[in-house]
Amino acid sequence: MVVLLTDFGQSEYVGVMKGIVYSICPTATVVDLCHEISPQCVIEGAWVLGNSVRYFPAGSVFCCVVDPGVGTQRRAVAVKAGEYYFVGPDNGLLWAAVSGLEAMDIREIEVPVGASRTFHGRDVFARVAARIENGGFEAVGRLVETMKKLEFYRDGREGMIVRIDRFGNVVTNLPASDQDQYRVMVGPHDGMLNFRETYDAARDGELFIIEGSCRTLELSVKNDSANDALKVAVGEKIQMA
Amino acid sequence: MVVLLTDFGQSEYVGVMKGIVYSICPTATVVDLCHEISPQCVIEGAWVLGNSVRYFPAGSVFCCVVDPGVGTQRRAVAVKAGEYYFVGPDNGLLWAAVSGLEAMDIREIEVPVGASRTFHGRDVFARVAARIENGGFEAVGRLVETMKKLEFYRDGREGMIVRIDRFGNVVTNLPASDQDQYRVMVGPHDGMLNFRETYDAARDGELFIIEGSCRTLELSVKNDSANDALKVAVGEKIQMA
Amino acid sequence: MVVLLTDFGQSEYVGVMKGIVYSICPTATVVDLCHEISPQCVIEGAWVLGNSVRYFPAGSVFCCVVDPGVGTQRRAVAVKAGEYYFVGPDNGLLWAAVSGLEAMDIREIEVPVGASRTFHGRDVFARVAARIENGGFEAVGRLVETMKKLEFYRDGREGMIVRIDRFGNVVTNLPASDQDQYRVMVGPHDGMLNFRETYDAARDGELFIIEGSCRTLELSVKNDSANDALKVAVGEKIQMA
Repeated sequence: MVVLLTDFGQSEYVGVMKGIVYSICPTATVVDLCHEISPQCVIEGAWVLGNSVRYFPAGSVFCCVVDPGVGTQRRAVAVKAGEYYFVGPDNGLLWAAVSGLEAMDIREIEVPVGASRTFHGRDVFARVAARIENGGFEAVGRLVETMKKLEFYRDGREGMIVRIDRFGNVVTNLPASDQDQYRVMVGPHDGMLNFRETYDAARDGELFIIEGSCRTLELSVKNDSANDALKVAVGEKIQMA
Repeated sequence: MVVLLTDFGQSEYVGVMKGIVYSICPTATVVDLCHEISPQCVIEGAWVLGNSVRYFPAGSVFCCVVDPGVGTQRRAVAVKAGEYYFVGPDNGLLWAAVSGLEAMDIREIEVPVGASRTFHGRDVFARVAARIENGGFEAVGRLVETMKKLEFYRDGREGMIVRIDRFGNVVTNLPASDQDQYRVMVGPHDGMLNFRETYDAARDGELFIIEGSCRTLELSVKNDSANDALKVAVGEKIQMA
Repeated sequence: MVVLLTDFGQSEYVGVMKGIVYSICPTATVVDLCHEISPQCVIEGAWVLGNSVRYFPAGSVFCCVVDPGVGTQRRAVAVKAGEYYFVGPDNGLLWAAVSGLEAMDIREIEVPVGASRTFHGRDVFARVAARIENGGFEAVGRLVETMKKLEFYRDGREGMIVRIDRFGNVVTNLPASDQDQYRVMVGPHDGMLNFRETYDAARDGELFIIEGSCRTLELSVKNDSANDALKVAVGEKIQMA
């Protein structure tokens, strides 16, 4: 199984990557994990990947492309970690996922001569993912010692906005702490917000806090977008105490 | 075949559900029916599902998540109806599809301990759909008598807006009635509009009426969005006489 | 393999087409090439298709629906060209793809009685694609001599905007010509812009030129949308000298 994570939206860039995978490995099952990562937002891609891998079958090859440095000297890597394989730019995107798994084997992928400078998803990563799916992990490149790390900032009750989802929910990396209310400070906002057990328990129009599907705190508005009110961005610091 | 219908957009919430299905049932084919149901809009999801089921192979398992009540006491159900299976929240979403089919067998799904309160698509519905695909429908829960009904309002020539599609077409549940013009009343709008056989037959910029792919009347603007002009919402009453 | 290209977005119109294909050809693999072609934009669809076909396995059936003339007398065609099959409206959408391939065999598809006037993707094209995938190309319709041509305008250093992608990049059909700067004239805009080897080499906020993944010139803004600044449309002429 080859699993795709990109910031390409529903564009042909994704479709072409699938064509490449099926051309090289006709027996592959290609699955879309997510393509609506905010454009170029490595942090968001890393969060989504790190929280999704465990739901896929062992042996899955994650082909990940959120790649603002495409065409530069940034390395491209393939990694075997735990029961999974990962392919992508070495810009921190893969770190959250692989650092929680065991026995990492990191390979540096050589960019083939003639590869486009803007679309390594097609000319590099999809090809390597298909070759791994064909059983050829060791042959994709030379073993290297290290890869780029990306840690989600956290210091006590101060953390980071890691994802803004399709509903406008603002996802943080702060765990819940059994409180009915939190003081939330983010950008110019500073105020007390209620914690709710379910979306349904919130009042209409209320900006509230809920424990999201990654077991961290999220800011939500029932039947509306929390981020229409907050206008924050992934990567911003947030305090919830 | 497991068919997914959600309001999750192109997010990882869909991808993770696929990971779960493939983990439990590696031989499944997972197909996206639609993920751009307006957020939390059960009526729209019910309309789309009810009008799509017949185009899928017998035996398909429809895993449906438009679920504003997630985490509350609302029931979760699995239904066998006709040659199809359905899984989803018991909030009316499944009714239009199953009520047109025969020999309904309704099971109440128990929410497993430890399930997230915000993402039953992952922790409940995808798992059950995969178990049904594996042949285990009877084991997913105890037989119950009833499920939540959702009827699309209609009284003569007054009906309901049931869908606003990607092109801005406003879809109603009113059948065509062989007229060249209709008086259309919806929200503050009240006026005569032409019926056109094809998009091409309309004048540029004209708000017109056409028989849509569900054999009901739709409001359209050629090469533009009817709803940019109308600004209506799914669930509103509309009269076309 | 049946490959889908439409302007349907992530709507149920795509999902229903998949249901049809799997109903008629259960062994098919259905792959999404792209569904975010700008609504009704045949030029953009033709560009994307023409630049994507080569990345798919021989034998793939491309089922393409960007179809402003649906329900009119415009023909529907199926084409065998090179190692590939194509199905779609005969409005120029298929031309860029098939004209570059050998030994074209063009069939006119008859629209079945009772087909919707608004959704031939479901009632015509998906069915024919599935029948071709089942090996029945010759039976889909009578051989015809010609099909609608669509050429992308180009005269020296004047060409055409052919695609505006998910990142707001404005794609042209003009090849690069080894210059550091180009004078760009499009709509009211007239100015010198720098050519950059990579996105990373551009300054923040700079509107610049890059060679895109189709080996033609594109206008870009790093980490932002070039088209938010330019507000151009597919089909407009552009000069880059």
